[in-house]
Amino acid sequence: MTEQKATNVHWHAGEVTRAERGQLLGQKGATIWFTGLSGSGKSTVAVALEKVLHAQGRLVYRLDGDNVRLGINKNLGFSAEDRTENIRRIGEIAKLFVDAGVIVLSSFVSPYRADRDVVRKLHADGGMDFIEVYVEVPLAEAEKRDPKGLYKKARAGEIKNFTGISDPYEAPEAPELVLHSAEMSLELEVETLLTMLKNRGILPA
Amino acid sequence: MTEQKATNVHWHAGEVTRAERGQLLGQKGATIWFTGLSGSGKSTVAVALEKVLHAQGRLVYRLDGDNVRLGINKNLGFSAEDRTENIRRIGEIAKLFVDAGVIVLSSFVSPYRADRDVVRKLHADGGMDFIEVYVEVPLAEAEKRDPKGLYKKARAGEIKNFTGISDPYEAPEAPELVLHSAEMSLELEVETLLTMLKNRGILPA
Repeated sequence: MTEQKATNVHWHAGEVTRAERGQLLGQKGATIWFTGLSGSGKSTVAVALEKVLHAQGRLVYRLDGDNVRLGINKNLGFSAEDRTENIRRIGEIAKLFVDAGVIVLSSFVSPYRADRDVVRKLHADGGMDFIEVYVEVPLAEAEKRDPKGLYKKARAGEIKNFTGISDPYEAPEAPELVLHSAEMSLELEVETLLTMLKNRGILPA
Repeated sequence: MTEQKATNVHWHAGEVTRAERGQLLGQKGATIWFTGLSGSGKSTVAVALEKVLHAQGRLVYRLDGDNVRLGINKNLGFSAEDRTENIRRIGEIAKLFVDAGVIVLSSFVSPYRADRDVVRKLHADGGMDFIEVYVEVPLAEAEKRDPKGLYKKARAGEIKNFTGISDPYEAPEAPELVLHSAEMSLELEVETLLTMLKNRGILPA
């Protein structure tokens, strides 16, 4: 765990509560955490889900490696230590959004089990507002897709520490949901996610 | 400026835009950045504004030193370098919330002009969605109030690098608003802020 340096601080309970913000929005804040290899389809399903939820009048916000890496985490690289801090910070941001009442869709490779577990523990409510979704795809398929040409570069040694090639991907042991993106249609993936959000009270029934 | 370490990344334009989220919420995301000495009344006015905005059906979220220091910035201390990184990260988080459509109320001493200017520059839209509010109070008055007993500890040397006592506070040179908290009622402060939010199109007229 990250060391707590600041002292003389305490959680400042706001006058407006999380429940009241949720009531205003007609939803319950939650984090849907998509994890999987590069090219597994994490962002594709997150973008599709975002579109459907927004059309239904829900407030949803997508965090992904690209926009976060250019902003809050621009002073982090890709060493194991920096990847851990990257995921920790994203988890803390997601937690703040959840507290604000927002449905967060985060899509990051997030290859290390321990890092994802830190994010899970950050979320309160007995884990009900943290949904780990493993977007599963065989490595060969992800490498065939290679939408950003990153596998090719990794194989050529131009990118070091690349997950699946020169760095491990630790699959979730007990994710809330597994999406086999090579076999499921995008529509079915989104449908499955919507049902799960209703079942958990994140969306009204 | 913080060094950009990550490469191979680009801003991932979402399918749902900031404007569409704003339309859904009936507001425009913005950051109201309260700055001032400890005990100046930053949090008091932020809490009051939050309450009024929520009652009007607006989605507002408050970031303050206490909840942020226990979360995303718990690995930062109070050295000049850590304070700078503290404010930078908060600015990046505020920017994400603004992009999500939320009205952010941030209350931090944020004593260094350069740090606040970094946050201002992070915000897009020609500064229209960043409102710096200087909550001004004479040091003697803040020290008299001393709501957390911190000035007493700082005078006794128990807290080092305490703003106003052993560390400088650099007042804003061109804030969007100055609130003289020793002379204005809380009601008048909130009223002034609401008018400003309407004038800037953050709230509907």
